[in-house]
Amino acid sequence: MPDKTVYRSSTFAPVNIAVIKYWGKRDPKLNLPTNSSLSVTLSQSDLRTHTTASCSSLYPTDTLTLNGQNQDISGARTQACLSELRSLRASLEQSTPSLPKLSSLPLKIVSQNNFPTAAGLASSAAGFAALVRSIADLYELPASPIELSKIARQGSGSACRSLFGGYVAWEMGHADDGSDSVAVEVAPASHWPDMRAVILVASAEKKDVSSTAGMQQTVATSTLFKERIEIVVPQRMSEMRRAVEERDFEAFAKWTMRDSNSFHACCLDTEPPIFYMNDASRAAVRVVEAINEKAGERVAAYTFDAGPNAVVYYLEKDEEAVAGVFKSVLGDKEGWEGEKGQKMKASEAPSGTEVAAEKLKSGISRVILTGVGEGPIKTDEMLIDDKGQTL
Amino acid sequence: MPDKTVYRSSTFAPVNIAVIKYWGKRDPKLNLPTNSSLSVTLSQSDLRTHTTASCSSLYPTDTLTLNGQNQDISGARTQACLSELRSLRASLEQSTPSLPKLSSLPLKIVSQNNFPTAAGLASSAAGFAALVRSIADLYELPASPIELSKIARQGSGSACRSLFGGYVAWEMGHADDGSDSVAVEVAPASHWPDMRAVILVASAEKKDVSSTAGMQQTVATSTLFKERIEIVVPQRMSEMRRAVEERDFEAFAKWTMRDSNSFHACCLDTEPPIFYMNDASRAAVRVVEAINEKAGERVAAYTFDAGPNAVVYYLEKDEEAVAGVFKSVLGDKEGWEGEKGQKMKASEAPSGTEVAAEKLKSGISRVILTGVGEGPIKTDEMLIDDKGQTL
Repeated sequence: MPDKTVYRSSTFAPVNIAVIKYWGKRDPKLNLPTNSSLSVTLSQSDLRTHTTASCSSLYPTDTLTLNGQNQDISGARTQACLSELRSLRASLEQSTPSLPKLSSLPLKIVSQNNFPTAAGLASSAAGFAALVRSIADLYELPASPIELSKIARQGSGSACRSLFGGYVAWEMGHADDGSDSVAVEVAPASHWPDMRAVILVASAEKKDVSSTAGMQQTVATSTLFKERIEIVVPQRMSEMRRAVEERDFEAFAKWTMRDSNSFHACCLDTEPPIFYMNDASRAAVRVVEAINEKAGERVAAYTFDAGPNAVVYYLEKDEEAVAGVFKSVLGDKEGWEGEKGQKMKASEAPSGTEVAAEKLKSGISRVILTGVGEGPIKTDEMLIDDKGQTL
Repeated sequence: MPDKTVYRSSTFAPVNIAVIKYWGKRDPKLNLPTNSSLSVTLSQSDLRTHTTASCSSLYPTDTLTLNGQNQDISGARTQACLSELRSLRASLEQSTPSLPKLSSLPLKIVSQNNFPTAAGLASSAAGFAALVRSIADLYELPASPIELSKIARQGSGSACRSLFGGYVAWEMGHADDGSDSVAVEVAPASHWPDMRAVILVASAEKKDVSSTAGMQQTVATSTLFKERIEIVVPQRMSEMRRAVEERDFEAFAKWTMRDSNSFHACCLDTEPPIFYMNDASRAAVRVVEAINEKAGERVAAYTFDAGPNAVVYYLEKDEEAVAGVFKSVLGDKEGWEGEKGQKMKASEAPSGTEVAAEKLKSGISRVILTGVGEGPIKTDEMLIDDKGQTL
């Protein structure tokens, strides 16, 4: 009798937002970066991908759905992840012949995000981290998060950092085969648990240039980029590690803002130039500068990925002085409904930010209140039932 | 009887817009730059400063008015120009005792711009060039434009380039006293007379950071700036000289756009970041890119100074394909009333520029149609009468 079992495993995986940015591949096929990067993993209560991986002889072929939509999995990146995980399982089956032969069964993968799959919300990082982690669990692979990060990296570079919670470095490595280009934990979330973030989501505007295409244009044409990857980022990586280790928010904020600006400067120095920040992004920069001036120290740090959304980091103790200002400016937008938003005190915008406040009001459509969080978490909540049906 | 003569001399001086940008002083007092730069002098029919310099014992003290407003001339920069010119005159008077002793007479200087003194329209370049040239004429100094450029440079760096017409390089020089930091002609306007420019003047918005303050912040804080001044600009200066010499618009356009982007990239890499370009500027970039794509070659080149205004260079033969597109998008703004604007054919905006066109419509208030032009011109049109009264 053929085995009709539906094998299943489920994972929640987090989004991460880099404070030292990944921009540029030295090997586009293996997703090997031109420089190391460092990120904060965000709380999964606010932003996460939930993925159930299953395999069964009942399935006709490999499939992946995200938020109910069938996804194309024929791309080289997804295939690299699936085949590497299958081959690890196959080795396991070879050394322990009693194990069921899962590696040869078709996979059915179902994913759901608890946030809008919008431009620049790092959904691919959470997505590939959840994909890799759920299949690794399904296959009962003994691989460590570091080893899994190597696989997730091939799906989407920054996904490797979502295999860990807290503060995470992606070491660029130097091997041609990518074997040393892995994510490592700099510090767990519990080391510096009061890190918060408010994300200002810009009104929908189609992204001009995908980050994959954009970063390769920068590598090929920017004359300032070499300085960034060879000199600037290596110094900042050590500064940022130290800032995290010593919970030095002043330094954390300084390097976060400078590195975001350095990354966007290299985008602008690309031919043709790439603009991800818009007038609303610039307004967010101004408001953060005014908040810091008023505080007399850096209590807020902006950073921008490959899109106009601002992510503003701050410490819980400064919530009113930072997120409270955005509540007073953007209080009528989506995102304040939850308990965190409701109980937060609004704080008057510093003087001199009137023009910036108007630009934010017209350019920002919603906010997300979040903070540092944990890495992927295995869960019994399945998105596929034991008959192989999507729930 | 005391000499009550009113000595007078008048000059028109042009604006220039750099294609290799000046940004950064190695000596702020002497206005010595961190890198050489190269500009196109624009036609004085469209943008010029008209200045009458006069001196007389009738005047109680040195004065300067611009567009009817009294100007403060006590600043170090204006004083440096005045005292250097006076000392050249004094030497002349010493060697030729028959000359009237103009160097000891109070100066009355009256200036008028034929364009709005708006942020980023290079008015200080034309202003200091006219000031220096009109006083040099008043004093009958035998100084060459190169020598005068050294004096104008101390008033406003880029003013040195307005002492020449056509295509002008400001050689950074290396001497500590600034003696070799001068402007020189790369080619006269007649060498490549069909160079045109359309200036898109952004709706009035107060400039965030003055260029003097901004460039010193960049020198002090940008980590990418060193690469720009040591490696990038020297290479581009030779490329641009060659492009001008060979009338190679394709190369001229390429380096013009790249250098504008490199300069704004360094502004963004400054701490705190400096943003001069806004959403309207980005829209101008998009439209120029679309015009070039449609043409299959670079027929238009954007450049941005320390403000959001776009200057778009093109050749006369491509007027319809370049300025014609801006006429179809911005035809209802000020600036098309003259003969040039009236007879120009509008040309449909390339497809895909709809969003950019909307941003231009809301962010641009007027256009200026101009082209390459001549250097300062002595004129008999006086702004002060022979009694010393302002006309």
